[in-house]
Amino acid sequence: MGLFQGKVLALAGGVGGAKLVLGLARQLPPERLTVAVNTGDDECFHGLHVSPDLDTVVYTLAGMSNPETGWGLAGETFHALEMLARYQVDTWFNLGDRDLATHIRRTQLLGEGATLSQVTAELCRCLGVAHRIVPMSDDPVRTFLATESGELAMQDYFVRQRSEPAVNGVQYRGAAAARPAPGFAAALADAGLVVLCPSNPFLSLGPILALPGVREMLAADSVAAGDVAGGAGAGRLRVAVSPLVGGAAVRGPAAKIMAELGHEPTSLGVARLYRGICDRFLIDERDEHLAPAIADLGIRPLVAPIIMETDEDKIALAKLILELGGSDDDAG
Amino acid sequence: MGLFQGKVLALAGGVGGAKLVLGLARQLPPERLTVAVNTGDDECFHGLHVSPDLDTVVYTLAGMSNPETGWGLAGETFHALEMLARYQVDTWFNLGDRDLATHIRRTQLLGEGATLSQVTAELCRCLGVAHRIVPMSDDPVRTFLATESGELAMQDYFVRQRSEPAVNGVQYRGAAAARPAPGFAAALADAGLVVLCPSNPFLSLGPILALPGVREMLAADSVAAGDVAGGAGAGRLRVAVSPLVGGAAVRGPAAKIMAELGHEPTSLGVARLYRGICDRFLIDERDEHLAPAIADLGIRPLVAPIIMETDEDKIALAKLILELGGSDDDAG
Repeated sequence: MGLFQGKVLALAGGVGGAKLVLGLARQLPPERLTVAVNTGDDECFHGLHVSPDLDTVVYTLAGMSNPETGWGLAGETFHALEMLARYQVDTWFNLGDRDLATHIRRTQLLGEGATLSQVTAELCRCLGVAHRIVPMSDDPVRTFLATESGELAMQDYFVRQRSEPAVNGVQYRGAAAARPAPGFAAALADAGLVVLCPSNPFLSLGPILALPGVREMLAADSVAAGDVAGGAGAGRLRVAVSPLVGGAAVRGPAAKIMAELGHEPTSLGVARLYRGICDRFLIDERDEHLAPAIADLGIRPLVAPIIMETDEDKIALAKLILELGGSDDDAG
Repeated sequence: MGLFQGKVLALAGGVGGAKLVLGLARQLPPERLTVAVNTGDDECFHGLHVSPDLDTVVYTLAGMSNPETGWGLAGETFHALEMLARYQVDTWFNLGDRDLATHIRRTQLLGEGATLSQVTAELCRCLGVAHRIVPMSDDPVRTFLATESGELAMQDYFVRQRSEPAVNGVQYRGAAAARPAPGFAAALADAGLVVLCPSNPFLSLGPILALPGVREMLAADSVAAGDVAGGAGAGRLRVAVSPLVGGAAVRGPAAKIMAELGHEPTSLGVARLYRGICDRFLIDERDEHLAPAIADLGIRPLVAPIIMETDEDKIALAKLILELGGSDDDAG
C-alpha cells in the first residue's frame, strides 16, 4: 500500500498529540506537515506567557523533551522556581530553568507586537524544528472548567487540582471571536489528510474545533467512509486516533471528564464527538467490540496498535495513517 | 568615642557600596538605616527589568550574594541563559537562574502598577532584609556614556564592552524629570549622618546626586568640617569613603573614567566632586599625601583602613564612620 503524498494537517494537544506528531514528522518532509496546536490552556505565570501544548510539541520535535514526563525539557533544573517560591508566589506550575527561557523569549516577542504564530515560528527556527507548528489561533482563547470547586482555568484544574474536581461544564472563552491562525487556516484549506491526534477531546482538541469555521471546514470536505481520495482537488481524508483504551484514557483525565459531562467514556463516546468531521477512527484491540457502533456513526473504525511507547510505535502509527490516505492512490 | 545615635542614609552603587552597607547594617537597627541605591544602570534584558545595584545590595544584606564576584547569587546556575542563547538573543549580561526569578518577579509587579520602591520593599521582605533599601528614584533614569565607540548604556559599556572604550561624557538621562523615591526623600530630610559609599563617583553616585534637589539638600545641611553634630535638629554629618586608592579604583573603571573626563584620578579628584556635600573624607594611607589638598577643599580628610575584604573590615569601617558621627555626643 502506498503512502499518502499530499499535505497533512494534524490537530494536537499536549503529550499524546506530540507522540503522534513525532511519528508524522519522521515520515513527512517539513513542507508537507502542519501541526495546529491547542492554545486553550495557555496561561500567564509570573507575568510570562506560557503555551504548554505548543512547547510540548516543539520540544518533542526538537528532541529536547523529557522522556519521563512527555512535557518539559530533559535534564531540566528548577532553580528559578525555587527562588520564585522565596518571593511567596504560587509555584504549583512546574517551570524549569530552560523552559523559562522559552516563556521569557515568547513574552518579550509578544510584547514587541509579534503574533503567537510568529513567535512560535521563531522558537522553532532556533531549535531546529523545520515542520510547521502553529498555534490554533493568534487570538486569546482560554479553556475554563465549571467544577464542583468552582470555575477553574485549565492549568489550575489540570495541574494544581490534579484534575480531581468533578467537571460539569467546559467553556472555551474567547473562541467565538477568535480566528484560526494563518498557518492553520492555510492548512485547513489545502491539506488532503487531517489527523485528529489522540488528545483529550474536550480539553485539547475541543478548543481547536470550537474556533469559528473549523468544524464546518472539516465537515464540508467530508468524503464517504471507504471512498478515500488523496490527490489535489479531491475530498480530504480525516483520521482520528482514539485517546481512550478500554474505557480509560491512555493518560490524563479524558475518560473522567467525559463521564462527568454525560458522555460515554469510551472510544465510541469520542467517535460521537467527532461525527461528521472524521472518516476513519483508530481504536485499540480492546475496543474492537465498539467497532460496529462506531461504524453506525458513518465513521469507519480500524483496530490498530494506537498505544505509543517507543519512537518506533509513533512512527508505525503515523505510517499506518499515511497508508490509509494513500490507499486510493493505489486504487486509482 | 560613642557611636552616632541618629538616623543614617547611605548612598550606594553596586559591589563597593554594598560592602560598606553590609557593615552599616551590622551596626544599625533597621529603623536607623536607609540605603538609597543607584538605578542609573537599570536595564531591560529579554523584556525583564533588571536593577543590578539594587540586587547587589539586597542580595548582600540577605547573605545570598556570590562572595567571589560581589554581584549575583552564591551557587548560581545559568541554565536559562544557555537556553536564551539558543534563541539567538544577546546573552552577554550574566543572568543566573535564581537571579532571573528576581527580575521576573520585579517585572511582574511593575507591570501590575507597583513602584520600584514597592517592588524593592517586597523583595526585601521576602528575603528577610529588614533595613530599608530604596531605589534612588521610582522614575526611570538611565546612565549613558559617550565613548569613542559611540553612545553606550551603562551595562553595555560596563559588562559587554568591559569598560574598555574611552569615555568623553556621561549623561543621566531622565534625571532632570525624576524625583527622589519617597523613602530616599524621607531619609534626606531626617538623616543625621549621610554616608557616600565607596562607589564610582560618575557611574554609581553620580546618578543619585543628579536627581533634582538631592545635591542641594545635602549642601544646605552642611556643617563646618570639625564642627560635627549628631542630634536631631543639628546639622548633619556627611562622610564619604574614597573608591580610589593610590590612583586606582579598588575595583571597576572609576579611575579610568575620571582621567578620560579630565578629572584627577585620585582621592583628591573624587573629593573635588563631593565638595560642598561632604564633611569628612576617608582615604587610604597610600593617599595620605593628598590630605592637605583635600583639607583645602573644606573637607576634613581621615586616613583609615578603607579596603574591605572581610566582613570584619566592613563592620570596622562602618563603626569608624559611626564614631565620627558620635564624637560630638561625647563632646556635648
